[in-house]
Amino acid sequence: MSDKAAKRAKFEHAWTRIRDELVGYAAGEGMPKEAVEWYTKSLDYNVPGGKLNRGMSVVDTAEIIKGAKLDDDEYYKAAILGWGVELLQAFFLVSDDIMDSSITRRGQPCWYRAPGIGMIAINDGFMLESAIYYLIKKHFRSEPYYVDLLEIFHETTFQTELGQLIDLITAPEDSVDLNKFSLDKHRLIVIYKTAYYSFYLPVALAMYMSRVPASYELDGKKIEPYKVAMDILIPLGEYFQIQDDFLDFSAPPEILGKIGTDIVDNKCSWCINTALAVVTPEQRAVLDANYGKKNEPAAEQRVKDVFEAVDLRGRYAKYEAEVYGKLNALIAGIPEGPQPGTLKRAVFTSFLEKIYKRTK
Amino acid sequence: MSDKAAKRAKFEHAWTRIRDELVGYAAGEGMPKEAVEWYTKSLDYNVPGGKLNRGMSVVDTAEIIKGAKLDDDEYYKAAILGWGVELLQAFFLVSDDIMDSSITRRGQPCWYRAPGIGMIAINDGFMLESAIYYLIKKHFRSEPYYVDLLEIFHETTFQTELGQLIDLITAPEDSVDLNKFSLDKHRLIVIYKTAYYSFYLPVALAMYMSRVPASYELDGKKIEPYKVAMDILIPLGEYFQIQDDFLDFSAPPEILGKIGTDIVDNKCSWCINTALAVVTPEQRAVLDANYGKKNEPAAEQRVKDVFEAVDLRGRYAKYEAEVYGKLNALIAGIPEGPQPGTLKRAVFTSFLEKIYKRTK
Repeated sequence: MSDKAAKRAKFEHAWTRIRDELVGYAAGEGMPKEAVEWYTKSLDYNVPGGKLNRGMSVVDTAEIIKGAKLDDDEYYKAAILGWGVELLQAFFLVSDDIMDSSITRRGQPCWYRAPGIGMIAINDGFMLESAIYYLIKKHFRSEPYYVDLLEIFHETTFQTELGQLIDLITAPEDSVDLNKFSLDKHRLIVIYKTAYYSFYLPVALAMYMSRVPASYELDGKKIEPYKVAMDILIPLGEYFQIQDDFLDFSAPPEILGKIGTDIVDNKCSWCINTALAVVTPEQRAVLDANYGKKNEPAAEQRVKDVFEAVDLRGRYAKYEAEVYGKLNALIAGIPEGPQPGTLKRAVFTSFLEKIYKRTK
Repeated sequence: MSDKAAKRAKFEHAWTRIRDELVGYAAGEGMPKEAVEWYTKSLDYNVPGGKLNRGMSVVDTAEIIKGAKLDDDEYYKAAILGWGVELLQAFFLVSDDIMDSSITRRGQPCWYRAPGIGMIAINDGFMLESAIYYLIKKHFRSEPYYVDLLEIFHETTFQTELGQLIDLITAPEDSVDLNKFSLDKHRLIVIYKTAYYSFYLPVALAMYMSRVPASYELDGKKIEPYKVAMDILIPLGEYFQIQDDFLDFSAPPEILGKIGTDIVDNKCSWCINTALAVVTPEQRAVLDANYGKKNEPAAEQRVKDVFEAVDLRGRYAKYEAEVYGKLNALIAGIPEGPQPGTLKRAVFTSFLEKIYKRTK
């Protein structure tokens, strides 16, 4: 087994224990057998099965800050926080799929489309969110950073919901209006809907767990490490999503592992917004007439032709080179010392190197 | 204006301030105008407009424990917690209405059926829940009982979701199976889905705010006031819901203010469960054949005839007399002293007297 596969297997093994704790809670409250089985099925169907990058990055970050392997107790604590991020994402995805009328997720029917589930999926989503706070209370109640964990989950949840709201009213699937789009709007959606929960949340959780204080001095300079982390991770998350948007348009499906549908789905993507900012009136008319059209492959192709005509590939390459340089400079500027419980540049380079020039 | 109307007006006035704080947060995060307006509309459509009993009981309880009028700061704090309960309920109702395919709520279309809303209502529900934690952090962060407030909201939310799950899988609207019903199941649903959030939560919030400690001594006896409160409020909430179920069947629509639909909707109500426990095989066959039938007034009437034949009215009267006696005895057993920050019997009698022998 590769190092990467072993890491994933270990993280997935922690899930079975966490799942059993949650099921044990429901059973202990005297829930009927059918309800306990239902919750078990919802947990196993919706929470594992993704790429687990967000969850595993909590463990990775805690290990980098410690500068040594985590002991069993530390590992399980980090895994609980990591699975907390995955639970939060599962809560969002179960409901996003209903709101977007999606058909499949991670190679299986969306939960609300699984046999016998339907709209009960909404309540199942809630119970994934509630699981986070049950687990945190059970395992962190006596820690001095307990309240920090609760607050960052609350705040990140609210931010993600705000991002989802802007996205839903800016780009409804059934009503195309490119006047609502702009690169500023795209940026806001990406930061709120994705960057906070996917990038800042896992790192901040690991920092709290590793007792990184709100501020410390290094070489006579005052550092606010959570602010430093946010100032890097938010643009990094933006870069990740822009790349995601670009790959949806540009990557060959056999490499990407799926067929991009952003154009057909009227998505407020980096591609359409970048094009809108530079098109001629004639090209704009083509986009207006052809963006977000279902079951019209020719329309999708006309949009793609405009994307090629405005050199979206060249513009992306330029963006990526710039943001990569900018992020590397930000990371290099982090003062680093040998003290335990302080920020390490490797926290951020590990993210950046996983993202830079990825093809899927 | 009556005393009761003045109390309600004051509580509603606090809402406008709370709503503005929430909208101010969204605007301050740089949300586009359309998103801020959307959130404002969702808050005003979904949160006020109910009976407000749950929310106002936080204020009432805080006043009873203090033994004097709340000052302006105390009032606003109690009102925030009270509106927190109303926000939690709004979060549940917005999504329950989607899960139940309901048409109207509080005399207006359900939010998901309001023009232009649709499934975005799911995310709007989430943003009602997130509002609770934003407000509590803003106003209670420096209080010693801050974590208690967060935890009780988390735990009550999870309990209510468990109750909703049991209810949804026990009594789906489109598949009638009376074998799934029982008085025990009814009790579990009622306690989890209603009693915790409607009765225990408001009182416990007021107790935390009033600095009622986890335990204290009175006349040489150790009191655990939160346990005492729960042991009364959970059966009280059960009584309230059983009465609600009975009124749905028995109250004249012109007094109740609505037409009961529990029989037609296949609800796991006290009435059907009580009947199931005592019917003859012939009566059982009538219930099996006629319960939960839409658009068949004759079927509903046949169920009602069985309810009358098993003397449901007499059984309810007997239940009510017994539970009223039992609750009064429990309340009378609470040791009461002049100390501030201790439990007062009036907290519970004020609930009980509002419920006992109500007709709507």
